[in-house]
Amino acid sequence: MQVKDFPLDHVGIAVRDLDEATQRYQQLASYHVLAEETVHAQRVKVRFLQEEKGSCKIELLQGTDPESPICTFLKKRGEGIHHLAFRVEDIQAEMSRLRREGFQLLQDHPVKGALNKWIFFIHPKSMGGVLVEICQTAAIE
Amino acid sequence: MQVKDFPLDHVGIAVRDLDEATQRYQQLASYHVLAEETVHAQRVKVRFLQEEKGSCKIELLQGTDPESPICTFLKKRGEGIHHLAFRVEDIQAEMSRLRREGFQLLQDHPVKGALNKWIFFIHPKSMGGVLVEICQTAAIE
Repeated sequence: MQVKDFPLDHVGIAVRDLDEATQRYQQLASYHVLAEETVHAQRVKVRFLQEEKGSCKIELLQGTDPESPICTFLKKRGEGIHHLAFRVEDIQAEMSRLRREGFQLLQDHPVKGALNKWIFFIHPKSMGGVLVEICQTAAIE
Repeated sequence: MQVKDFPLDHVGIAVRDLDEATQRYQQLASYHVLAEETVHAQRVKVRFLQEEKGSCKIELLQGTDPESPICTFLKKRGEGIHHLAFRVEDIQAEMSRLRREGFQLLQDHPVKGALNKWIFFIHPKSMGGVLVEICQTAAIE
């Protein structure tokens, strides 16, 4: 299978406070809030910021309980960039391809992420310390 | 001064080996090498990867000596995402605006970065742990 085009969809940033972080990005550039959602399975509240011209979103991530993955990340590393997310047309095909190529994946099957999209993650060990999310372009119907 | 549109220009990633990292991103997605350069002042060798459709580049960063900022980062944090870079039309005006807004900047004046562009950095303290580069859209004439 040929390597497909994977545009960068968003940069995920772990923050302590969504409102404070939103204000920071709005002061930096012309970001507006595109969507906000609590993903209960991940114990995370996310807020997507979109720019007028930019094609790459910012996803702010705030943990909803102290034992959530984001709060664990904050305790260990502090606030900062958490992951890069690339979007693909056919997530199942890409999951199979990446597994065949030897990438270590964190899920066996795509799981539901924010904005009602299928997602999965590539282990940072396979990506030089970068946690990579693959998300499907279209929302789940 | 009104907040301007700042598209995300690239994500900077600290790596131990440019070739190994390039191969990883080419295996992940359809990246091609756009440019490569050694920035002697920063003791760093950078390689820009560009996608067919994506507007946001990947900048791989490999230190050229053990005491360089990138090698210091690698010793402290390991390989991983180093900075986010936003591009602006008028870097001098944005530098003044951001300083007035209270952002702590790492330079007093824009400095020459890769691809012959003016750049400056915002301190991670002002950006919730994220090192942010601002780079001018047009190269220096």
